[in-house]
Amino acid sequence: MHTPAELADIAADVLARVRDRSPRVHCITNTVAQNYTANMLLAAGAVPSMTISPDEIVSFVAGAEALLVNLGTFDEERRRAIAVALDAAGTARMPWVLDPVFIERSPGRAAFARELLARGPAVVRLNAAEFGPLFGGDPADKVAARVAEACGTVVALTGDNDIVTDGARRAVIANGDPLMALVTGMGCAGSALVCAALAVETDAWLATNAALIVLGVAGEVAAEATHGPGRFASWIIDALHSLDRTTLRARLKVS
Amino acid sequence: MHTPAELADIAADVLARVRDRSPRVHCITNTVAQNYTANMLLAAGAVPSMTISPDEIVSFVAGAEALLVNLGTFDEERRRAIAVALDAAGTARMPWVLDPVFIERSPGRAAFARELLARGPAVVRLNAAEFGPLFGGDPADKVAARVAEACGTVVALTGDNDIVTDGARRAVIANGDPLMALVTGMGCAGSALVCAALAVETDAWLATNAALIVLGVAGEVAAEATHGPGRFASWIIDALHSLDRTTLRARLKVS
Amino acid sequence: MHTPAELADIAADVLARVRDRSPRVHCITNTVAQNYTANMLLAAGAVPSMTISPDEIVSFVAGAEALLVNLGTFDEERRRAIAVALDAAGTARMPWVLDPVFIERSPGRAAFARELLARGPAVVRLNAAEFGPLFGGDPADKVAARVAEACGTVVALTGDNDIVTDGARRAVIANGDPLMALVTGMGCAGSALVCAALAVETDAWLATNAALIVLGVAGEVAAEATHGPGRFASWIIDALHSLDRTTLRARLKVS
Repeated sequence: MHTPAELADIAADVLARVRDRSPRVHCITNTVAQNYTANMLLAAGAVPSMTISPDEIVSFVAGAEALLVNLGTFDEERRRAIAVALDAAGTARMPWVLDPVFIERSPGRAAFARELLARGPAVVRLNAAEFGPLFGGDPADKVAARVAEACGTVVALTGDNDIVTDGARRAVIANGDPLMALVTGMGCAGSALVCAALAVETDAWLATNAALIVLGVAGEVAAEATHGPGRFASWIIDALHSLDRTTLRARLKVS
Repeated sequence: MHTPAELADIAADVLARVRDRSPRVHCITNTVAQNYTANMLLAAGAVPSMTISPDEIVSFVAGAEALLVNLGTFDEERRRAIAVALDAAGTARMPWVLDPVFIERSPGRAAFARELLARGPAVVRLNAAEFGPLFGGDPADKVAARVAEACGTVVALTGDNDIVTDGARRAVIANGDPLMALVTGMGCAGSALVCAALAVETDAWLATNAALIVLGVAGEVAAEATHGPGRFASWIIDALHSLDRTTLRARLKVS
Repeated sequence: MHTPAELADIAADVLARVRDRSPRVHCITNTVAQNYTANMLLAAGAVPSMTISPDEIVSFVAGAEALLVNLGTFDEERRRAIAVALDAAGTARMPWVLDPVFIERSPGRAAFARELLARGPAVVRLNAAEFGPLFGGDPADKVAARVAEACGTVVALTGDNDIVTDGARRAVIANGDPLMALVTGMGCAGSALVCAALAVETDAWLATNAALIVLGVAGEVAAEATHGPGRFASWIIDALHSLDRTTLRARLKVS
């Protein structure tokens, strides 16, 4: 296992590599979150693209280094786009992240998410309400570890604390701020940052920890001086853009 | 009729209930306004959802407490989504708000808005230019009262002053700031806040007044210290998030 | 040719006319950029509309004074909307701007952009990566002038410096700030501002210079006091909203 200091350094290293290599992340995401997700990726140093047209998504995925599949604003065209995008990602052996937004509100969406899970995402990032409809159990630590192992995926269960497990390894990140839950698309942006990290770090468990640590610490920095969720949404982008190793080391709360 | 002090207290009560109960508001709205609308609802304490997929919108509406039907970015899929969403809302006897965006620019959209009006929205929120194409008259006070009574709906005609009438009752709210007209989706967000209020207040006239008072006062607070429409868009979210009864009482301008 | 002082005054004049006449600009643009583009147009004094429904876009274009055709988030419905919108713009002899977003990533999108080029945009605004797939050469000054002349269009090649040429005339604008590249949709918003300028200035080369000067100078003003790309995205809107002739004269860097 890694010590907190090691994880802070890994997060700083991954962020440095994203800034240096500017990985291209293709996002199939909902129209609510597209703009914010793109701005968060740009602030981290990545290059976002967002098309969902089935006619051209293969070209975009082929030119990317990681893929986000977010189920918000689920529709027929998006389902087709996801299918061809995953074929292209599979051909390129490209890591992809599944974000099963709001599947607890729609049985059809939950069923589709379970189909996608069978296609082997590198990481599933989700919240407690989405856990049961996807994995069929309570979002407890043990269940998360079991399903991560069974599915061969990293499970990142985000909330007050973020639990990141691949079955064998487990970290609990206690950074972040309650204001993050008041900015729409924050979770979606977090999943996109996981994609950016996967593009520069082959160990998916480390990449996921790095992305969520970076986001959580940026959120804390932004929250300290802000005035509410409106300004916070911009300030966390700025905090992410200027985040450094010293801040990561000083603030990381992981167990 | 209610005194201004009573209306300020009702607005504060409704806001307190939204914060306490976190009502779920499903929004069928245009892609331009989706993100801003979601953030405004979150700042008020409500929980937004935004899907327009006809395949799953019934599940989302069934799990919500109020529904917004906004006609911006009108397309075939959205028309189908609206039809099934209104069926679901009707079954659940759920209040819904009609926001007939830009119908003065498109006869087809205006015709569709008139069809929707016949389905019995709790509230219609619109501006002066949209009034004639929907109701067939000038947006004068008397006409608004007459059509509200005839249609059995609350009419909220927003602009420099907001007129809220259900035929029998009428309030004119003089809060707000001209910067609000320079933020795209502000009217759409206002309609969404009316939905949140309807979820916690069964008197639709009071709910509409409460939502528009809260928004107008938040706009005034934000405008006092801001630098232009860019920052104002964030600051009004913060003002809404921290708005209190004392501020509402001190600032309400209603007649 | 125009002196820098003359171009600064032309930019100020065009901005004054946009504020005075509030031209309506219809934008066919990607869902990532819609909200930001609308807010930038509002801050400049223009009135945006954004529908892409083929059923009603003709009404919206007919009521507008300029049209933006942006290829981001390219899909079947958008292609149909573009076709009917260009027919309506042709009938009305309305100027339109082509923004061939990301065509270097998708051969199909590039082919569609070349078809649109043949329909005679007043202005093509694009970056260096998009230049080759559209015009078939390196994005050098001479090639830009040649293709502008051959296509009968203004070419605006934006980047660290913005080159604006109609074949006969050429300006290089050195304003702007690197933070602009970290805000998603900034280029799209720039193309929309060119539309607003075309609505009040019939000389497309002057209109394009005016719009890009205004945007670049606003970017510089905003960047001077900001903290990162998050806040910068709002501050440039405020800078645009309050931009004056004195600032344009003092800051314009053109050759």
